Amino acid sequence: MKPRRSAAGRTRLGEIGEDLLLEKLLRRLPSGEGVIAGSGDDAAIVVGPSGGDLAVLKTDCVVEDVHFDRRATPEGIGWKAMMRPLSDFAAVSALPKFALVTLIAGKEKEVAWVTRIYRGLNRAAARFRVSIVGGETSGTPGPAAISVSVMGQVEKKRWVSRSGGKAGDLLFVTGRLGGSIRAKHLRFVPRIAESRWLTANFRIHAMIDLSDGLGVDLPRLARASGVGFQINREQLPLNRGANIDNAISDGEDYELLFSISPRDSKRLQTLWARKFPKLPLTQIGCFTQLSTRNSQLLPRGYVHFQ
Amino acid sequence: MKPRRSAAGRTRLGEIGEDLLLEKLLRRLPSGEGVIAGSGDDAAIVVGPSGGDLAVLKTDCVVEDVHFDRRATPEGIGWKAMMRPLSDFAAVSALPKFALVTLIAGKEKEVAWVTRIYRGLNRAAARFRVSIVGGETSGTPGPAAISVSVMGQVEKKRWVSRSGGKAGDLLFVTGRLGGSIRAKHLRFVPRIAESRWLTANFRIHAMIDLSDGLGVDLPRLARASGVGFQINREQLPLNRGANIDNAISDGEDYELLFSISPRDSKRLQTLWARKFPKLPLTQIGCFTQLSTRNSQLLPRGYVHFQ
Repeated sequence: MKPRRSAAGRTRLGEIGEDLLLEKLLRRLPSGEGVIAGSGDDAAIVVGPSGGDLAVLKTDCVVEDVHFDRRATPEGIGWKAMMRPLSDFAAVSALPKFALVTLIAGKEKEVAWVTRIYRGLNRAAARFRVSIVGGETSGTPGPAAISVSVMGQVEKKRWVSRSGGKAGDLLFVTGRLGGSIRAKHLRFVPRIAESRWLTANFRIHAMIDLSDGLGVDLPRLARASGVGFQINREQLPLNRGANIDNAISDGEDYELLFSISPRDSKRLQTLWARKFPKLPLTQIGCFTQLSTRNSQLLPRGYVHFQ
Repeated sequence: MKPRRSAAGRTRLGEIGEDLLLEKLLRRLPSGEGVIAGSGDDAAIVVGPSGGDLAVLKTDCVVEDVHFDRRATPEGIGWKAMMRPLSDFAAVSALPKFALVTLIAGKEKEVAWVTRIYRGLNRAAARFRVSIVGGETSGTPGPAAISVSVMGQVEKKRWVSRSGGKAGDLLFVTGRLGGSIRAKHLRFVPRIAESRWLTANFRIHAMIDLSDGLGVDLPRLARASGVGFQINREQLPLNRGANIDNAISDGEDYELLFSISPRDSKRLQTLWARKFPKLPLTQIGCFTQLSTRNSQLLPRGYVHFQ
């Protein structure tokens, strides 16, 4: 079936079939190391984690009018859709390897829009040598949505959970917080390199990536670890134009928040400044005993469905 | 935060936070074999394929008003959302192990509706000992969608692609075709057991699961194998109430279509009848040389976006 072209020369999804679209999109996908059979078959066949490493799985999605608006560039949307789950790989200190993409879009969308979304997905995947090994598309009468699932691996002794924090641990945050919605949320780079360096050199007790905002994610991390927390609001590292409330509540920072023993703190700060001279690392507070009831109340970050 | 209840006593998604919802949904998830860390952390950590087996990845989605309508039972919707990617595991003869679920739903949906969808997802996963290791939710201003990604494994010598078919192969189909939309599409059981038995006992050249209908999936299988095909339309196994056109075009049969050498055909039919006495296995045609130009035109099955 030959796709018809609209008057303006811009083909819409409703004018071509799914097979043709997938063929068009997936033709340009890099087939990387460890891919035995990628898109084009019923399921992707890949080489699993080697040498007793553990497998790591994460899925995440972006929805039109929720995670991006219609003014966002398609490349930025695709970039964000891929980088969101990769940010969770940073949180557990794992290496991403393979991704599956589900694209849900109405038939009035232009094929060029979808192609540009895939360009963003591809660029983001290539940044971390991730192979996109499967694609699925579906029509919808509603807003577009992109769901990305990623599989990767981590060494048994290196994965970091949310639950290993201890009272007395110091809390550190990478980068700067607040105001991400102005631009950063469509072009952030997940802190995978930083996370891998951290676990290669230090014992990180608990870690999370800041997606919903410090005001939501810090209580989550503390709750999972069974501890309380205190932060110095005035010491929060702020993005240009952001204030303290932005840093706590805006969300979508995709920076790392982690806890570490106080005795490692000096060495961490020294080595970090040498390794990542352009990226601030800030001690923002500490974990406390849960019973002391001195955890400060933070304004809430972004909560879905509300 | 305590969820408020609406006048009718039915809480809606907009009235509770994402954490609370996930907690509610994931509390009942079985944490199966090989799960080191499941939902509740940033990413799931699981044991990968053992003994040199390959990893298998597949994602699929169902969208409201596209794959199910508002009259479908939530349990049926959840069942279907999980079973669709599992049907692809049957197609490549792999064993599914772990699943990630993304639920996109508007805030007007009742929490009970979501809970019942998860009941369907759980039942379907339990049927094949699959552990749901991660959940993600998002709001939407549009129709609901559920995306399920599954990871599993297959022995290197047992995975079946779409591309191994040869001219002269006989084509077999499991079960009966047509009319799935009336009920079967919400309660089908993927042919994983049958597929695993097939590859344990025979050399299956090429295989696909019939999701878009024979009229679409058979040409796909033939194209991937670089061959033509002929079918005997009158020999298609029909579901009660379905005619030949339904069998070719309805889609959502989730039966297996595979090709095998003619010399294995007799033994296959004998052993199959003994192993699966209640499930028909029908020879519906054969693969031909591509150059003979005698591939019959089939009415098209279901094509997304159209």
